[in-house]
Amino acid sequence: MTAHTWVDVPDGSPFPLQHLPYGVLAWGEEGPLACVAIGDHALVLSGIDDLRELGLFDHGTLDPLLAAGPAVWAQVRDRVTALLQDPAQEQAVRPHLRPVANARQLLAFTVADYVDFYSSEHHATNVGHIFRPDAAALPANWKHLPIGYHGRAGTVIVSGTDIVRPSGQQKAPGSTPTFGPSRRLDVEVEVGFVVGTPSRLSVPVTAAQFTDHVFGVVLVNDWSARDIQAWEYVPLGPFLGKSFATSVSGWVTPLAALAPARVAPPAQDPAVLPYLHDTDPWALDLHLELSLTRGGRTCVLSRPEFAGMYWTPGQQLAHLTVNGASLRTGDLFASGTVSGPVPDQRGSLLELSWGGTAPLMAEGIGAVTFLEDGDTVTIRATATGMGGVPIGLGELVGTIRPART
Amino acid sequence: MTAHTWVDVPDGSPFPLQHLPYGVLAWGEEGPLACVAIGDHALVLSGIDDLRELGLFDHGTLDPLLAAGPAVWAQVRDRVTALLQDPAQEQAVRPHLRPVANARQLLAFTVADYVDFYSSEHHATNVGHIFRPDAAALPANWKHLPIGYHGRAGTVIVSGTDIVRPSGQQKAPGSTPTFGPSRRLDVEVEVGFVVGTPSRLSVPVTAAQFTDHVFGVVLVNDWSARDIQAWEYVPLGPFLGKSFATSVSGWVTPLAALAPARVAPPAQDPAVLPYLHDTDPWALDLHLELSLTRGGRTCVLSRPEFAGMYWTPGQQLAHLTVNGASLRTGDLFASGTVSGPVPDQRGSLLELSWGGTAPLMAEGIGAVTFLEDGDTVTIRATATGMGGVPIGLGELVGTIRPART
Repeated sequence: MTAHTWVDVPDGSPFPLQHLPYGVLAWGEEGPLACVAIGDHALVLSGIDDLRELGLFDHGTLDPLLAAGPAVWAQVRDRVTALLQDPAQEQAVRPHLRPVANARQLLAFTVADYVDFYSSEHHATNVGHIFRPDAAALPANWKHLPIGYHGRAGTVIVSGTDIVRPSGQQKAPGSTPTFGPSRRLDVEVEVGFVVGTPSRLSVPVTAAQFTDHVFGVVLVNDWSARDIQAWEYVPLGPFLGKSFATSVSGWVTPLAALAPARVAPPAQDPAVLPYLHDTDPWALDLHLELSLTRGGRTCVLSRPEFAGMYWTPGQQLAHLTVNGASLRTGDLFASGTVSGPVPDQRGSLLELSWGGTAPLMAEGIGAVTFLEDGDTVTIRATATGMGGVPIGLGELVGTIRPART
Repeated sequence: MTAHTWVDVPDGSPFPLQHLPYGVLAWGEEGPLACVAIGDHALVLSGIDDLRELGLFDHGTLDPLLAAGPAVWAQVRDRVTALLQDPAQEQAVRPHLRPVANARQLLAFTVADYVDFYSSEHHATNVGHIFRPDAAALPANWKHLPIGYHGRAGTVIVSGTDIVRPSGQQKAPGSTPTFGPSRRLDVEVEVGFVVGTPSRLSVPVTAAQFTDHVFGVVLVNDWSARDIQAWEYVPLGPFLGKSFATSVSGWVTPLAALAPARVAPPAQDPAVLPYLHDTDPWALDLHLELSLTRGGRTCVLSRPEFAGMYWTPGQQLAHLTVNGASLRTGDLFASGTVSGPVPDQRGSLLELSWGGTAPLMAEGIGAVTFLEDGDTVTIRATATGMGGVPIGLGELVGTIRPART
């Protein structure tokens, strides 16, 4: 049975009653305000008396809600669902519904630590072939642990923020290093998990405790300057090739909305060590879409499938904390680039153009290798929500601006 | 001429009038309180009327002071110096001086992003020999850019916090991976720089702008589980081998106190790219000391010299932001392990015991390779302060506790 809302939700909206993602919006001088999306509207949570009394929604970020933990997350979601479902509530609630179209969307939470994993076997294999043609494509440790590293939390920005092309040190084979704007600016299509409940230093969190700690999901574009990255990353990993910007969607989808999207993850061989074993493993069946707008034309470049990731979000969380590293409210851990086994499921231009050597022919656009100034990149994702109703994660958009001179 | 204070400062105290480091302390139920150290005492800054009125010292962290910028930093330092110098102020100020001995020292600021560099040529060369015996010791990029990476800000802890031995995945040559407590737990003696003034996204900060943005200096112990690190770090860098804990001193030395310790840095060959060129380059002449207490005996293991670092703090800052990455108040960037050209200047046990193959004979302790449960590690540093008066940075102490079972 499909639940209905008295709000007029357009057909095909990514935000039906079954979704209810959270975000922070501002209208003119008013805000930032914590909201829930329904159709084309945002419900201002502090407008509802009993929700305002929770003391969670008058801070201009989702941080207090994230910190409140899973019982409160369920309580708020149930209450908002009931308010939007019950026609008797319309008169009281409608004044607090505002159109999203004329709002500015802000970063919904304060990013504490940002960790980026590398959990797609196809992506890691492709990158290995392109970056390290003389070595084994997959590093020796890759199937034993979910490789990850820390990124720059302070440059995580919300969808819609322009990306200024970064400059940095690069080195072509056989020449000395040079400095200049990146000429191999790339995207990475990723899915990020937002931590709500903190954990104690020195106490690991298991995969089974995932929903006690993780609040929800965002889309992530881990913008990458491949030329800067290639020269800097040995031996301590990516740094300036990534740290200029990482975009996340403004709407955070609560895990509860994605319960129907849980599917079995791929089999793992060799078997993992016990700390990475999940008694009830799950992946998320999210259908991602990467599109490029250039010269007024828009083309879908690829459709990565998140369900195929080798390492699960639960294993990533267990690995991240097994050494005793603590979690904080606002920690963000991303999947790494989502790439599938076939070319049109690749989540980066590095892979789609095979390091720039085999330009992708994009319909209406022409040959695509890396990003040009003026390009707009859009990442979307859909999933099956409660009652079989399709939902769409918050869209993630960024436009490339010329390098600073 | 040496300035004098009416406070009774013990001979040889690291905290004479010429130092005046900042910290956050709590006495019983009272605090946390922002303080300045003088001798064995802490001056509670919110106790002084005109300082309290700045609105910077009633938050239980140094964050508001850090964010206030260099003009305010100078104003507060001048005022505190005058208060402690002028005998006429003693009656008003003395009630706000408290003994440090019975206080708990807290983390003085909220760490935003934590970056760790790798700027000692001797350390990088030693580690290259030990970790990658078949390759060139120094990576190809090492003399062209100050290599760095992001660490975990959420597990930066204050001096005095115990270190629980981390567990994690390890792999001995020729065997399959195993899980267990690290058996190669190590220290890294480092110097960290604390950012005060933020910078704008997409706008680089130059080396010449260093004192506009950087507030002060802490000692850093970048605890490292070498067995976990060795197996995980290819290709994306150190992760769980470091993220369980990074200790910093509780007292933050303002840059102004270290002005007399500025010295010329080592020459760089090859010449660096223009963005790394500093028209007025400087290093800091800090004399570091690493000591180990085991079984009731204490021995100094090494005395690294910070002045010999190949890459300067100014170059690190310029590199960190050249891609447009912004700074936030509370960003911490550390030097990387400080090691000199001779064995007793090495800043890690990895180097001091050459990967555990050549135990260090420590007087009164015996053979030392890596850290044992119960070991206490202490890092100190001295420098020449104003008027030639020696000062000592805030001591950095940590004791190893057994792995969680």
